[in-house]
Amino acid sequence: MSKIANWREGEIFSDIYLCRSKVSGKTKNGKTYYNLTLQDKTGTADGKVWDLSSGIDHFEALQYIRVEGEVQRYQNVLQLNIRRVRLAREGEYDPADYVPMSPYPIEEMYDRLLGFIRSITHPQLRALLEAFFVNDAAFAKAFKQHSAAKSVHHSFSGGLLQHTLRVTELCEDYCRKYPLIKRDLLLTGAMCHDIGKLKELSTFPANDYTDAGQLLGHIVIGMQMVAEKIAQIPGFPEVTKNELCHIILAHHGEFEFGSPKKPALLEAMALHFADNIDAKLEIMCELLSDSNAHGWLGFQKFLDTNVRRTET
Amino acid sequence: MSKIANWREGEIFSDIYLCRSKVSGKTKNGKTYYNLTLQDKTGTADGKVWDLSSGIDHFEALQYIRVEGEVQRYQNVLQLNIRRVRLAREGEYDPADYVPMSPYPIEEMYDRLLGFIRSITHPQLRALLEAFFVNDAAFAKAFKQHSAAKSVHHSFSGGLLQHTLRVTELCEDYCRKYPLIKRDLLLTGAMCHDIGKLKELSTFPANDYTDAGQLLGHIVIGMQMVAEKIAQIPGFPEVTKNELCHIILAHHGEFEFGSPKKPALLEAMALHFADNIDAKLEIMCELLSDSNAHGWLGFQKFLDTNVRRTET
Amino acid sequence: MSKIANWREGEIFSDIYLCRSKVSGKTKNGKTYYNLTLQDKTGTADGKVWDLSSGIDHFEALQYIRVEGEVQRYQNVLQLNIRRVRLAREGEYDPADYVPMSPYPIEEMYDRLLGFIRSITHPQLRALLEAFFVNDAAFAKAFKQHSAAKSVHHSFSGGLLQHTLRVTELCEDYCRKYPLIKRDLLLTGAMCHDIGKLKELSTFPANDYTDAGQLLGHIVIGMQMVAEKIAQIPGFPEVTKNELCHIILAHHGEFEFGSPKKPALLEAMALHFADNIDAKLEIMCELLSDSNAHGWLGFQKFLDTNVRRTET
Amino acid sequence: MSKIANWREGEIFSDIYLCRSKVSGKTKNGKTYYNLTLQDKTGTADGKVWDLSSGIDHFEALQYIRVEGEVQRYQNVLQLNIRRVRLAREGEYDPADYVPMSPYPIEEMYDRLLGFIRSITHPQLRALLEAFFVNDAAFAKAFKQHSAAKSVHHSFSGGLLQHTLRVTELCEDYCRKYPLIKRDLLLTGAMCHDIGKLKELSTFPANDYTDAGQLLGHIVIGMQMVAEKIAQIPGFPEVTKNELCHIILAHHGEFEFGSPKKPALLEAMALHFADNIDAKLEIMCELLSDSNAHGWLGFQKFLDTNVRRTET
Amino acid sequence: MSKIANWREGEIFSDIYLCRSKVSGKTKNGKTYYNLTLQDKTGTADGKVWDLSSGIDHFEALQYIRVEGEVQRYQNVLQLNIRRVRLAREGEYDPADYVPMSPYPIEEMYDRLLGFIRSITHPQLRALLEAFFVNDAAFAKAFKQHSAAKSVHHSFSGGLLQHTLRVTELCEDYCRKYPLIKRDLLLTGAMCHDIGKLKELSTFPANDYTDAGQLLGHIVIGMQMVAEKIAQIPGFPEVTKNELCHIILAHHGEFEFGSPKKPALLEAMALHFADNIDAKLEIMCELLSDSNAHGWLGFQKFLDTNVRRTET
Amino acid sequence: MSKIANWREGEIFSDIYLCRSKVSGKTKNGKTYYNLTLQDKTGTADGKVWDLSSGIDHFEALQYIRVEGEVQRYQNVLQLNIRRVRLAREGEYDPADYVPMSPYPIEEMYDRLLGFIRSITHPQLRALLEAFFVNDAAFAKAFKQHSAAKSVHHSFSGGLLQHTLRVTELCEDYCRKYPLIKRDLLLTGAMCHDIGKLKELSTFPANDYTDAGQLLGHIVIGMQMVAEKIAQIPGFPEVTKNELCHIILAHHGEFEFGSPKKPALLEAMALHFADNIDAKLEIMCELLSDSNAHGWLGFQKFLDTNVRRTET
Repeated sequence: MSKIANWREGEIFSDIYLCRSKVSGKTKNGKTYYNLTLQDKTGTADGKVWDLSSGIDHFEALQYIRVEGEVQRYQNVLQLNIRRVRLAREGEYDPADYVPMSPYPIEEMYDRLLGFIRSITHPQLRALLEAFFVNDAAFAKAFKQHSAAKSVHHSFSGGLLQHTLRVTELCEDYCRKYPLIKRDLLLTGAMCHDIGKLKELSTFPANDYTDAGQLLGHIVIGMQMVAEKIAQIPGFPEVTKNELCHIILAHHGEFEFGSPKKPALLEAMALHFADNIDAKLEIMCELLSDSNAHGWLGFQKFLDTNVRRTET
Repeated sequence: MSKIANWREGEIFSDIYLCRSKVSGKTKNGKTYYNLTLQDKTGTADGKVWDLSSGIDHFEALQYIRVEGEVQRYQNVLQLNIRRVRLAREGEYDPADYVPMSPYPIEEMYDRLLGFIRSITHPQLRALLEAFFVNDAAFAKAFKQHSAAKSVHHSFSGGLLQHTLRVTELCEDYCRKYPLIKRDLLLTGAMCHDIGKLKELSTFPANDYTDAGQLLGHIVIGMQMVAEKIAQIPGFPEVTKNELCHIILAHHGEFEFGSPKKPALLEAMALHFADNIDAKLEIMCELLSDSNAHGWLGFQKFLDTNVRRTET
Repeated sequence: MSKIANWREGEIFSDIYLCRSKVSGKTKNGKTYYNLTLQDKTGTADGKVWDLSSGIDHFEALQYIRVEGEVQRYQNVLQLNIRRVRLAREGEYDPADYVPMSPYPIEEMYDRLLGFIRSITHPQLRALLEAFFVNDAAFAKAFKQHSAAKSVHHSFSGGLLQHTLRVTELCEDYCRKYPLIKRDLLLTGAMCHDIGKLKELSTFPANDYTDAGQLLGHIVIGMQMVAEKIAQIPGFPEVTKNELCHIILAHHGEFEFGSPKKPALLEAMALHFADNIDAKLEIMCELLSDSNAHGWLGFQKFLDTNVRRTET
Repeated sequence: MSKIANWREGEIFSDIYLCRSKVSGKTKNGKTYYNLTLQDKTGTADGKVWDLSSGIDHFEALQYIRVEGEVQRYQNVLQLNIRRVRLAREGEYDPADYVPMSPYPIEEMYDRLLGFIRSITHPQLRALLEAFFVNDAAFAKAFKQHSAAKSVHHSFSGGLLQHTLRVTELCEDYCRKYPLIKRDLLLTGAMCHDIGKLKELSTFPANDYTDAGQLLGHIVIGMQMVAEKIAQIPGFPEVTKNELCHIILAHHGEFEFGSPKKPALLEAMALHFADNIDAKLEIMCELLSDSNAHGWLGFQKFLDTNVRRTET
Repeated sequence: MSKIANWREGEIFSDIYLCRSKVSGKTKNGKTYYNLTLQDKTGTADGKVWDLSSGIDHFEALQYIRVEGEVQRYQNVLQLNIRRVRLAREGEYDPADYVPMSPYPIEEMYDRLLGFIRSITHPQLRALLEAFFVNDAAFAKAFKQHSAAKSVHHSFSGGLLQHTLRVTELCEDYCRKYPLIKRDLLLTGAMCHDIGKLKELSTFPANDYTDAGQLLGHIVIGMQMVAEKIAQIPGFPEVTKNELCHIILAHHGEFEFGSPKKPALLEAMALHFADNIDAKLEIMCELLSDSNAHGWLGFQKFLDTNVRRTET
Repeated sequence: MSKIANWREGEIFSDIYLCRSKVSGKTKNGKTYYNLTLQDKTGTADGKVWDLSSGIDHFEALQYIRVEGEVQRYQNVLQLNIRRVRLAREGEYDPADYVPMSPYPIEEMYDRLLGFIRSITHPQLRALLEAFFVNDAAFAKAFKQHSAAKSVHHSFSGGLLQHTLRVTELCEDYCRKYPLIKRDLLLTGAMCHDIGKLKELSTFPANDYTDAGQLLGHIVIGMQMVAEKIAQIPGFPEVTKNELCHIILAHHGEFEFGSPKKPALLEAMALHFADNIDAKLEIMCELLSDSNAHGWLGFQKFLDTNVRRTET
C-alpha cells in the first residue's frame, strides 16, 4: 500500500484511502473541481479531482475510496492529482489501516493500567476501577480504541489509553515523592479523569465532538459516569465519592479551562499537574517528531510561543 | 420581644437570641472578654461579655441564649453590654423567630411557582417539575425554607424560593418578547437552576457551605439531581435531557464564575441573564433598603463600584 | 423583482440592486474582473463581472445598478454571473426596496414608545422626552429609519426603534418587579440611551460609522444631546440631570465596552442589563433565524462560544 | 506657629489647625475618646482627646480648632495628646495656612501657561483658551487654587495648575521631536485636558469628590465644558471640535482607566503619554521626597511594584 | 530547651530565642509595650513585654535574647508573657538551633545531587556542574544552607537543596517518559535553575531579599552566574550555552511570573513544570502538615482557592 | 535606477533589486509560477514570474537579481510582471542602495549621541559609555547600521541609533523637569537600553531574529553586554552596576512585554516611558507618513485602535 507518509513526487499508483472531507471549488475560469482530504494511518494529504467524469459523485466524506493518480508537489507540499476515483468495496480494505494509531502497543499499555488497578487497596475504589476497566467489556474495548482529543494532542486511536496511562504513571511518581498524597484516591482519579471523552468524542474514523460533548463536556460527563457506577457499589463512603468527583471536576485546574471547581485537595492538584504536563509535552513532542520540523517552527497557539527542536 | 432592628441606645432588657458566633478576646490589660454575635430575624448585632462569671461557659455558637444587658453605642453602632447570660430552655423561644425571612409570604410564592408548573405542556418536562415540586414533600419543604446564598443576596429563609420565582418570571417575560425561545424548556431550567443549593448550603440557622458544596458546587450538584430524577421518567428524550443539563451547567454564564460550559442555546443565554439580573439588582436593593444608607456608600465588591441611592 | 433571498441556481434575469461595494481582481492569467456586492432589503450577494466591456466603468459603490446575468453556485453559495451592467435611472427603482428593514411595523412600534412617554409623570423628564420624540419632527423621522448598529445586531432600518422599544419594555418589567426603581428616570434613560447612534452611524444605504462616531462614540454623543436639550427645559433639577447623564454614560456596564463610568445607581444597572440582554438575544435570534442554520454553527465571536438551535 | 511637619516629641503648645476628621472610639474599659485628624499646609497628624470635658462637642470636621496639648510618639509616629480644644474664632487664623500648597509659585506657573496660550496661532483654538484662562476670571481663580486629585498625586492647592503646565511642557517637547504633531491642537488639548476636575473635586479644604464627579467623571465633564465654550466661538470648525473633544476623552489612554475612546489621533496619543508620565513620575517623586523614605519602601499600589530611592 | 512547637499554656521558663522582630505599641491608656517575634528552628511565636524596665532597650531585631516568662493563650494562640529579657551571650546558644531546617538530611540530599552530576555525559555540561557543586567549596556550603524562598514554601535552611533535588528527580522521571528530551541539558538546567537565589536572598537568620535580589531577581542573576562559569570552560558550545541560559530564563513559565522568555524548548517546558509542581505541592503539604489544620482552611492566596485535608 | 517607490503603471524596464523572498505557486490550471518580493531602500513590491524558462532557478532569497518586466496594477497595488530574471553580478550594484535607511543623517545623529556622552560626569558611567561608543570601533559601526526592530517601527538601517538618540533626548527633558532624577544614570541607561538588539537581530539585508535573540531576547542580552563591560572598568560601584542593570531589565515596563522586573527606581520608570513613547509615536508617524493613508486606516494591532490623520 502507498502509505501517505511515504509518497514521493512523481509516483503514479492506484490505492484506497479514507475520504475525510470532500469540498468543491471553482477555477477562475468557472470550471468546477473537487478537493479531497485523503487519510490513512500515517497521515492526511490533499487530492485534487479536475475531471468531473471521474466518479466524484458516487461517494461522500468518511467513506473509503479507491483513487488513481500522480503525486505532485504544490507550494512545497505533496498532493495527489486524481485521474479516477470510485467508492471502495467492502473487503477491499481494512478500516484499521486508516485510523491514526498510538505508537505504543494497545494491549501492553492496557496491561500496565490493569497492574495499577491491582495495586489499589481501598476496596471500594478498587471495585469502582474494576467495574469499568475489568468487568465492563464494552467500556474496555471503547477505551482502548478512543483518542484523547479531536486534534491538538493524542488525537489517534489508543490516545486516550496512552494519555491515561502516562498520567497515572506521573501520579505514581508524585505519590513516592510526596507521602502526604493518598495513593489509592489519586490513582483512581488519574485512571478515571478522562473517561468522559468516550462520550464527548465520537469513535474513529469521525473522532469529532458529539452533541452531548458540546453541551456538557467530558469533565462533567466523566464525573457522572463515575457517580453512577459508584451508586452500584455497596458501602462506597460518601466523602470518598465527593472527593473523587471533585478531583475529576477540578482536573483542568482553572475555571477558564472548564473546571467548575479549582483543586482544593492535594490529590486534585497533583492530578491537574500530571494531566497538564502530559498534554503540553505531548503537543511539543508531536510537533518536534515531524521530520520536516527544522529551525524555529513559528508561533504555536496551544503553547503560546515560538518553538524549536533542541540542538545540544 | 426586643427585636434587634428596634434596639435603642440606653435600653435595658433581658431577651433570647441565637448566638451566631462566640469569640474570646483580651484587653490590653490582659483581661479576657467575649464577643458574641446575636441574631434574630430582624438582623444581627454584637454583644460584649466582660464579666466571665456571667455564665459564658455554658453554651456554644448556634445555640439560643438569654442575655440581660444594656444597649450602648460604639463607633456609631449599637451593641449590647451583657451582664448575665445563660442557655435558653426549650419552649422559651420559637426558632422561627431567629431566622431572617423573605419579605414575601412563602406559600403565596410557592403557589405562583406551582402555577408556572401547571402551564408547562411538554409532558416529560412537566413530569420532572412535578416529581420535584409536587410529589416530593421533603424537597418542597426544604425548598421553601432554604436561602439562595450564605450572604451577598437572598441569604434568608425563603430566599431560594423568592429568587427562583423571580428568575422564572423574568424568563416568562423573555418568552413573550423573543418567540424563538422554547418556553417549556426555559421555564423548567429556571425552576431547577439553583436546586443544587439545597445540598451546597446547610439549613438554618447555620446556612453555611457543606463539604459537598465546597467540593462540587451547586451547579454540578443541581445538574446531577435533575439527571437522576430524569432517569426515573419514562420516555424523557435524550436531547432534551442534554439541553436541560446544559442550561443548568451554563447558568453562571462565564467560566470564571464556575460554569463549565458557556451558554450555547438561546434558553441557556436567557436563563443566565435572568439569574444575573435578579442577583445583582437584589444586592443593590438590599443595600439601598438599609435605612442607614445615605449618600455614596463606598466601593461595593460584588458590584465593582461605588453606589448611592437615586435622588430623582 | 428577483429578491436576493429568493434566487435559484440557473435563473437568468435583469434587475436593479444597490451596489454596496465594487472591487477589481485579476485572474491567474492576468485578466481583470470585478466583484460587486449586490444588496436589496432581503440580503446581500456577490456578482462577478468578467467582461469589462459590460459597463463596469460607469458607476460607483453605493449607487443603484441594473444587472443582467445568471445565478450560479460557487462553493455552495449563490452568486450572479453578470453579463451586462449599467447605472439605474431615477424612477426605475424605489430606494426603500434596498434597505434591510425591521420585521416589525415602524409606526406601530413608535406608537408604543409614545405610549410610554405619556405614562411619565415627572414633568421635566416628560418634557425632555416630548422635546425629542414628539416635538422634534426631524429627530422622530431619523429615529424611525435608523439602525442600531453597523452590523452584529439590529443593523436594519427601524433597528434603533425596535431595540429602544424592547429595552424600554424590559425596563418596565423591572419596575414592576423591583419597586425601589424610579420608573420615570429608568424609562427616560431607556428611551434616550442610544440616541447618540443617530450621529454615530450615517443613514442608509451607507449605515456606516461617521467621523464624529469614531472620535466620540454614541455614548458620549447621546449624553451631550440629552444635556443640550435639558438646558432648554426650565426647572430641570440638577441632580436629575446628572443621574440621567450617568445612566446613559454607564449603559455599557463595563469600562472595556466604552462606558466611562460603571453603573452606580439602581436604574443605571437595570438599563445596562436590559440593553445587554436585547443585544445578545437578538444576535442569537438573528443567527438562528437563518434557514441555513443547522447543527452547531461554529464559534461566534460576539457570543464567545459555539451555538446551535434548540431541538427540544 | 507649630507647623505639623516641625513637631518634636515632648513639645507642649497651643495652636490652631483644620480638623479634617473627628471620630469617636472606646477603650477596652468602655471609656469614650476622640481621634481627630489635624491638618495644616505642611501635612496631617492625629490628635487624641481623652478628656471629654475638653470642649469636644462644640465643633465638627472641616472646622478650624484651637488645641492645646503635648506631642507624643506612638508606634514611631508623632501625635498630639490634646488637653483642651475649642472652635477657633474668625480672624484668629488664615485659611490659606491650612491648605497644602504646590511647591511652585502659582502666579509664575500661570504666567507660563498664558505664554503658551499666546503662542497658539489657530484663531478659534486660541479664542477657546482665552475664553477660559484669560477672560473668565472665576475660572482662572478656581484653576489656580484647585488640586489635581483627592490624593495619590498633586493633591494640593495649585496641583491642577502645576500638572497642567508640566503636561503642556511635555507636549511642547513632543512637538519639537515629532513634526507631524499639530502643535496648536495638542497644546490646546493639554491645557484643557483636566479642567473637568474643577467640577469633579470640591475646593479646599474639603478637596473631595462631588456628586457630579462621582456620576460623570472629569473626563466627560471637561469635554462638555469645552464643547459648551466652543458653541460660543463663531466659526469653530466642526472637525476641530470633534478632534479636540476626542483628545480630551481619550487622555486616560485605556478603557479601564475611564476613557470611553482609545487615542486615535497622534495628538491624542501624545497627550495621553504626557499625562501619564507626569502622574507616575510625580507619585514617585512625592514618595521619594519624604525624608523618612529609606531603603525599599514596600509595594506601591499605584506603581504596582516595590520601590526605593536611587543610590548612585 | 523549650522548643516553641512544644510550648504548653501555663509553662514558666527562661530560655534563649532569636528575636526576629521588635515593635513597640501603646495601650489605650497610653502605656508603651513591646511585641517581639521569637524564633527557634521549630517555629515562631509572639512575646509581649509590658514592663519596660525588663531590659528591652539593650537588643535589636535579629539578635539572640534570653527571655523569662509564662506561656499564655490569646485568641487561641500561645504567646509568651515576658517578665525579663536580656541579650544572650556568645556561647550561651548555638545559632543552628534557631534556623528552621529541612526535614531531610542535608548531606544525604547533596550526595544524591552529586550522583546526578556523575550521570551527566556531555563533557562541558558536566564540567559546568562540577565547577559549581564539586570544585567551588564556598558555593557548595552556601547551597546546602540556603532556603528556596523568604516564605511561602521551602523557606528553611536546606530548602534550596531540597527543592533543587526534587525538581531534578521530577525531570529525571520526564526523561524516562519522553525520550525526545535531552537528559544532560534538562538535568543541568534543573540543578542550576535556582542558584540565583544564593544572591537574591540573604543567609539565615535574616533570609530576606537582598538589594540585588530586588533589582535583578534570581532568574537573571542565576543565568549570569551560569554564563560567567561557562566562560571559563573551554569548548563550551555556543548553542548549548544559549539553550541552557534560555532554560533558566524561562523556568517560571509565564511573563507574569518574571520569566522574560516563555519556554521554547522541550527541556525548558519540562523544567518549568517540575519547578511549578514542587512549589505548589510543597505549599499544600506544608499547609496540611500543620497539626492544627482541620476542615476547610480558608482561601489560600498562592493556591487561589480554599483547601482541606483529604479524608479518604 | 527605477526606485520601487517611484514605479508607475505601464513602465517597462530592467533593473536590479534585492530578492527578499521567493515562493512558488500553482495556477488553478496546474501551471507553476513564482512570486518574488523585491526590495530596494525605498520599499518592497511583488514581482511575478510566469515563464519558468526565465532564469528562476539560478538564485535564492536574499540575493541580488536583475529583473526585466512591466509594472502592472493588481487589486490597486503595483507589481512587476517579470519576463526575464538573472542573478546580478558583483559590481553591478551597491548593497547600500537596497537597505531601508533612517531619514536622518547617521553621523550627525551619532555626533549628538557622543555629545551626550561627553556631558556625563560620573567617571565610571562615562567610562562605560566610552568603552562602547568611542573605543569599540566594531560596536560603533554596527550600532550605526542596525535597525531597532524586524518590523513594526524603526525597522531600517540607522533605526537603532535614531531610536536611542530620541529616547536619550526625551530622558534629558525629564531630567530638567524632575530634578530628583539622577541624570548620569538615566542617560547611561537610555544610551545602553537597546544595545542587545545588536545580537537579537541580524544585520541587513536579513534584519531578522537570531537564534540567541529568540532564546534570550535583547533585554537580557543587553544587560549582559553591560555587565561584561563593567567588569573591565576598575572601581565601578556595585550598587550602580545593579541599578543600571535593573534599568535595562525593566525598560519594557511590564512583565507581559518581557521585562523580568518592573521599574523600581525613578530612572527606570523614566526610561520606560521614554522608550514607550518613541516606539508608539514612531509607529503612528510611520503609518501617517504613508502618502496613501487617507481617512480611517482600520484597526492597528500595535496601537489597539483604529486611527486617522489629524485634519485640524
